[in-house]
Amino acid sequence: MSKEITSRSSDYSQWYIDLVLKAGLADYSAVKGCMVIKPYGYALWENMRDVLDKMFKDTGHVNAYFPIFIPKSLFEAEEKNAEGFAKECAVVTHYRLKNDPDRPGKLMVDPAAKLEEELIVRPTSEAIIWNTYKTWIQSYRDLPILINQWANVVRWEMRTRLFLRTAEFLWQEGHTAHATKEEAVEETTRMLDVYSDFAESYMALPVMKGVKTANERFAGAEDTYCIEALMQDGKALQAGTSHFLGQNFAKAFDVTFVNKENKSELVWATSWGVSTRLIGALVMAHSDDEGLILPPKLAPIQVVIVPIYKGDESKPLIDTKAREIMTALKQRGIRAKYDDSDNSRPGWKFAEYEMKGVPLRIAIGTRDIENNVAELARRDTRDKTSVSLDGLDERIQQLLEDIQQNIFMKAHQYREEHITEVNSWDEFVSVLEGKGGFISAHWDGTPESEDQIKTKTKATIRCIPLGNKQEDGLCIFSGKPSKERVLFARAY
Amino acid sequence: MSKEITSRSSDYSQWYIDLVLKAGLADYSAVKGCMVIKPYGYALWENMRDVLDKMFKDTGHVNAYFPIFIPKSLFEAEEKNAEGFAKECAVVTHYRLKNDPDRPGKLMVDPAAKLEEELIVRPTSEAIIWNTYKTWIQSYRDLPILINQWANVVRWEMRTRLFLRTAEFLWQEGHTAHATKEEAVEETTRMLDVYSDFAESYMALPVMKGVKTANERFAGAEDTYCIEALMQDGKALQAGTSHFLGQNFAKAFDVTFVNKENKSELVWATSWGVSTRLIGALVMAHSDDEGLILPPKLAPIQVVIVPIYKGDESKPLIDTKAREIMTALKQRGIRAKYDDSDNSRPGWKFAEYEMKGVPLRIAIGTRDIENNVAELARRDTRDKTSVSLDGLDERIQQLLEDIQQNIFMKAHQYREEHITEVNSWDEFVSVLEGKGGFISAHWDGTPESEDQIKTKTKATIRCIPLGNKQEDGLCIFSGKPSKERVLFARAY
Repeated sequence: MSKEITSRSSDYSQWYIDLVLKAGLADYSAVKGCMVIKPYGYALWENMRDVLDKMFKDTGHVNAYFPIFIPKSLFEAEEKNAEGFAKECAVVTHYRLKNDPDRPGKLMVDPAAKLEEELIVRPTSEAIIWNTYKTWIQSYRDLPILINQWANVVRWEMRTRLFLRTAEFLWQEGHTAHATKEEAVEETTRMLDVYSDFAESYMALPVMKGVKTANERFAGAEDTYCIEALMQDGKALQAGTSHFLGQNFAKAFDVTFVNKENKSELVWATSWGVSTRLIGALVMAHSDDEGLILPPKLAPIQVVIVPIYKGDESKPLIDTKAREIMTALKQRGIRAKYDDSDNSRPGWKFAEYEMKGVPLRIAIGTRDIENNVAELARRDTRDKTSVSLDGLDERIQQLLEDIQQNIFMKAHQYREEHITEVNSWDEFVSVLEGKGGFISAHWDGTPESEDQIKTKTKATIRCIPLGNKQEDGLCIFSGKPSKERVLFARAY
Repeated sequence: MSKEITSRSSDYSQWYIDLVLKAGLADYSAVKGCMVIKPYGYALWENMRDVLDKMFKDTGHVNAYFPIFIPKSLFEAEEKNAEGFAKECAVVTHYRLKNDPDRPGKLMVDPAAKLEEELIVRPTSEAIIWNTYKTWIQSYRDLPILINQWANVVRWEMRTRLFLRTAEFLWQEGHTAHATKEEAVEETTRMLDVYSDFAESYMALPVMKGVKTANERFAGAEDTYCIEALMQDGKALQAGTSHFLGQNFAKAFDVTFVNKENKSELVWATSWGVSTRLIGALVMAHSDDEGLILPPKLAPIQVVIVPIYKGDESKPLIDTKAREIMTALKQRGIRAKYDDSDNSRPGWKFAEYEMKGVPLRIAIGTRDIENNVAELARRDTRDKTSVSLDGLDERIQQLLEDIQQNIFMKAHQYREEHITEVNSWDEFVSVLEGKGGFISAHWDGTPESEDQIKTKTKATIRCIPLGNKQEDGLCIFSGKPSKERVLFARAY
């Protein structure tokens, strides 16, 4: 494995791509815009998925699975939603191939097998799900429905980037149905809190919770809540969204219920999702020029043990000690790996596990064992210390917690240093071009100003923070009155 | 919930469909041939998936994810595989919709967004995966690759049936790459053993392990190993397959490695899969006219507690006792539910949980508590007994094991009684039309006889059992010499 990755300072974008490829998280595929999630990247996703899945179940949700295809007539039923996704839809038009008479051994699409109605590969599942809920909901007794789905979705993208923007990606999408508006709004914010808790407590990723402007809303939503994170290059990344859909999908699919007073009402809806994009956020928020830095709570390997030996005679002694350590770590539920493969040197292994972002590395040789010590290296700080083998497992458990905390604090400090209040257009442009990060500025509340700011600077309103302070001010763009500051940034 | 489901004896097929729908396992969808897996069905799948996933990891495999789309030119590269699936392929031809000028608010496929090369929605992933492995494999050091994928696949089917045959289904597909033929064959049979162990130990489903005839082989395989189960109507069901693919995909995608002697060789391959079809097998193998019978090891709810009370004043006492029982059960890792909902009567709940196949039901009232007893009902035997509340959790744990064992034994006995040796064509037809089940008969080994038997009777050779006894005989169809008996049956 070559350690050569581009440095962040020379080319942040290329650094990210190098890292994803060299750490073995993902690979390009033969399908334009689609990626292969490699075993190490998938193990990371499994850890994220398992934590989120438990959080969803703890808040009363169950999983289900709906078809990947949506008939065009259903897809277009909720017009705003359809319009929002129409330009990104992969469309199935035929259901059979046949031998190509002109090219022996090759296949062609069978023109006789054209579908009567085209099928859209789901870019999101509101349409197919609400068409199904229609048959499941009659009475208030059938509500709420609290369903989540783990699935692949396809949004055709011209410019893709591994994890951050791919034509196909993996995600979860919650789709809930409620009897009242209040309950649906409560669900929307509850799931935003789940996402925020997951990002901060597990990904060590500080996020701003807020609500999107009308321009940035999910197509078909009444309100889109979001968590926004900051990457090391000062660009923002939307890490999760939770939508209050009002009665839009109930109207489009005619989903009504009979309430306790025996009157028919439209059902209220929410949807919420996070995707494999979070892996991109995780990589970009914490890693350095030596490779990944993974938060211990999600790292596929939390501790790696590397034996240091010359000649085979000293190896059995190290093996024995390493297995003792492995056993003690596993008893504490720590994911540990003993890499005693003999086809690479310790130095190469050190570099490999640094690249892969393994939080702690233990190097152990015969002399260490004689002295009852081992060398312990932290990935986040790159500190090395010689530590006693006595109580090593307990020390490691504590260190993993420290590392988790340290990674969060570091990202938090960076984020806090990169929220800048500005009060003029010049300041706005200057911070955007220089320091980057979130810019807290007054905005007149009109889509027109928002659009023009975006056109001129590529900065968008990331969110109106929840619990935002109300203060009088003047829009940095139009100079018109404003009641509050919003957060601008350039974003992924 | 209505308990009216068709009885097995009057219409086995309809019984199955009624059961799947009324137990809440799955539902029809708006997409022809695709189903919705409902929360209860999905919970069952999650339990199956988690057990299998652990078994795969324990045998050294890791998970990854490959694109859902396969460019046509890759798909057709392995000709036999392509030919085998060509007639069932959903094809993406366009990547955008646009407003339909003739129908305001409606969408149409944008003819300007036609793909240069059509994309096949994966019916199986050998092509896309081996095209990727090509870039991952250079040296013997890169082998073996032991990857599994959990994914959705699409095989266009004209005649579908919930779980058993649907256009889209969920499955896992293992794809491994090896340096030697021996290692690949070993992997193929190892995974067959994993499937067989899973079917018997978890699904309580006895299976025959065997190898398919050339006619029944997976398209592109050198050998297809399978596990075959028997349903209560005497029809067989292929429950899992493990394929030795030889070097066919390595040839098609030019995947070579440099061996230890520095010579270039083609890589050896296996693939193996089981799908949501297993849920159909589980339902059909064990259930009765009252509903599902689920093996405790996979049941989403293992024990349900139903309170029996009149008026609200006695309820708190029952609640307290029920919560005690729940706590004790959860400490033993037993999945228990206390159904104290007040919108249905105990009798309705009893029927509901019988329909859902919950292995054990506890009914408990105030008088029971006074007497320190509860009523315990087994779903498999429908036995009811009054049992002491002392040590109830331990007793339940033992009973769940007994039920698991009993369900297996019952299915095993049925299967053993339905393997019939026949020695003439008349006998063959008579058993097939009457008793059903597996028929062990001599076959001359030719695809011609096999085809004709299938055409005349709809019976296929399910497998040549592993470790089959060699004995001289005469083919029941052609009368030609045969060296061994094979297992025939009509199948799902």
